[in-house]
Amino acid sequence: MSFLHPTTLTKESFSPFGELITLEESEHFAINQGTTERYHALSEVDVSEQSGKAIISLFRGQSFSLPFQLKVMERHPLGSQSFLPVTQNDDHSYLVVVAPSFCKTEDDIVNNLCAFVAKGFTGVTYAKGVWHHPLISLDRVSDFIVIDRKGPGNNCDEINLTQKITVKF
Amino acid sequence: MSFLHPTTLTKESFSPFGELITLEESEHFAINQGTTERYHALSEVDVSEQSGKAIISLFRGQSFSLPFQLKVMERHPLGSQSFLPVTQNDDHSYLVVVAPSFCKTEDDIVNNLCAFVAKGFTGVTYAKGVWHHPLISLDRVSDFIVIDRKGPGNNCDEINLTQKITVKF
Repeated sequence: MSFLHPTTLTKESFSPFGELITLEESEHFAINQGTTERYHALSEVDVSEQSGKAIISLFRGQSFSLPFQLKVMERHPLGSQSFLPVTQNDDHSYLVVVAPSFCKTEDDIVNNLCAFVAKGFTGVTYAKGVWHHPLISLDRVSDFIVIDRKGPGNNCDEINLTQKITVKF
Repeated sequence: MSFLHPTTLTKESFSPFGELITLEESEHFAINQGTTERYHALSEVDVSEQSGKAIISLFRGQSFSLPFQLKVMERHPLGSQSFLPVTQNDDHSYLVVVAPSFCKTEDDIVNNLCAFVAKGFTGVTYAKGVWHHPLISLDRVSDFIVIDRKGPGNNCDEINLTQKITVKF
């Protein structure tokens, strides 16, 4: 068994895997005659390949806790997938486990895994083709707004992890 | 001065203006080895005209209360615009004021206005070209995830309301 320790989630540390969705250091400006502040383009949505369209869904994820043994990694080769927690509680958190899109085998993935803990109203956009573990909400059932792709073509690859890898602090 | 009274917001009553985003009566199914429930395609995103792309932003809207005098109506002729409140509190609410896309003048808009109160985790997608009042959060400053269009072309028409129309219960 091997262990994976989460590191600090920042725009920079997440950039190889997509975009971090956060109000911190984001461009914002007043609109609507000054009555609304727009935090602009926190993430782009990249789903147009093979005539894909963006759709808005909600994912309700079961509660997990650390240590957590990873089960499977998946990726969407035709489109980005964005997750935004429907909460602003700073004690809300979830685990983000990713591997770069160049990985082709379980060994590639295992050798390039990164884990992060996302807190409060912090979202992620997994770029097209980036490997990620399915949703791991921590400590409570959690709802996420998800923006991803609907359209023709195979848009999901999965690799079951036969090696035992456990995420723990 | 004339008055506009909000009516009940349902998928059916909102359908001339776009899509209501709600978990009620929505398609849902288990994914991620049964650990996540996916409430699927609560809304589509319609932004591809003239090479548009979807972006994810956050709007922080000031607090208003009823009675509320309408100021301006706007529409986005090239793309849909979706609003999802970042809350699941059932006592959270906002005002939705719309007019059909066929309206061309202030008189057209005024003669076809509809107002609704959206509560809790209820979102709306304004269809392409549907007239709507800028964000009117009720009773508190409120954050909304917004999915709309980035791209070339003029995507905002505005008509200032010179007639005094007040929304009240």
